[in-house]
Amino acid sequence: MAFSPLVDELVESLRCLPGVGQKTAQRMAFHLLERGRSGGVRLSEALSTAMSDVRRCDSCQNFADTPVCGICENPARHTGTLCVVESPSDLLAIEQAGDYRGSYFVLMGHLSPIDGVGPEEIGIERLLQRIEAESVKELILATNPTVEGEATAHYIADRLDGRNVLITRLAHGIPVGGELGYVDGFTLTHAFRGRKPLAD
Amino acid sequence: MAFSPLVDELVESLRCLPGVGQKTAQRMAFHLLERGRSGGVRLSEALSTAMSDVRRCDSCQNFADTPVCGICENPARHTGTLCVVESPSDLLAIEQAGDYRGSYFVLMGHLSPIDGVGPEEIGIERLLQRIEAESVKELILATNPTVEGEATAHYIADRLDGRNVLITRLAHGIPVGGELGYVDGFTLTHAFRGRKPLAD
Ligand SMILES: [Zn+2]
Ligand SMILES: [Zn+2]
Repeated sequence: MAFSPLVDELVESLRCLPGVGQKTAQRMAFHLLERGRSGGVRLSEALSTAMSDVRRCDSCQNFADTPVCGICENPARHTGTLCVVESPSDLLAIEQAGDYRGSYFVLMGHLSPIDGVGPEEIGIERLLQRIEAESVKELILATNPTVEGEATAHYIADRLDGRNVLITRLAHGIPVGGELGYVDGFTLTHAFRGRKPLAD
Repeated sequence: MAFSPLVDELVESLRCLPGVGQKTAQRMAFHLLERGRSGGVRLSEALSTAMSDVRRCDSCQNFADTPVCGICENPARHTGTLCVVESPSDLLAIEQAGDYRGSYFVLMGHLSPIDGVGPEEIGIERLLQRIEAESVKELILATNPTVEGEATAHYIADRLDGRNVLITRLAHGIPVGGELGYVDGFTLTHAFRGRKPLAD
């Protein structure tokens, strides 16, 4: 930019945000400078604190401010049921649905040998230790329905072979409120195979 | 969010960015925490410095780090020609085109009586003083081709009535490389009315 190294640097550093290119970064910088300086100051402080102080929960690996996160420390959550998800946003989606009362384990990824992500990197040993230590009865493998998510789920299931743990996977089917015409073929096939009597 | 007040605050404060809603803010926060902490720290610092130190140029009103900006201080720019734009991004677009060598005046908006934006708010007096002081020969009114932009251009022209300044407006027409079929009717009408002999 021709007029201000400080504005240049702001635009450049906004590009670290996912989905933000040069044009969007410029628009964001100008907006903050013109009409949102207090918001910009607040964001600067929130970033600084979060980047230095947010850690991983010792128990579930999710983001936390404390050694053990609020969900893991909540005595009202059932420890006998453990739900394995790939990311904090998956956990958040389940929490917002509001029905599940068990505990979680956040892999922060999935197995991806080509990227050097093996069992070690996503904390499989820690997961197995927890299942043992908390005498988990049911392990819900809520990894994504993608090739990598399925492979990760199968790897975990294999490692638990012979142990007395019920291993489940989320049901596939038509989204509630979804229109049949917009549902893809794989989902529709799953929905057909999983059909239930009307009384159920 | 159930698990971390620091992450909550980061998500909330990311929403000060234009076009960023709850979902996008979440995705941005998780991305920075998982894979972009150094980028997050850099952004925090850039924001903090820019929000406190970026000011308006005393001469052209554009964002600047110094009392007078780099363009205004550049002795190679012609002071006899002054281009009036609504925003820093308009100035930037013209600078990137690379052809214009005159100076600028950035209104940081347009007249909008309904929002309480009058001549005072966009610096019209300062503009008139500059035109006088620098003996400007040509004033290019490059405000946007919108109702507000046109009204602002006309207001400025009216205020200069009787003074010996050539007032111009950017040409309307078909964008270079544009396809005729995609050009709107108003633009096409302007292009017809402004047609020139092939030799020109
Ligand atoms: Zn936890
Ligand atoms: Zn200037």
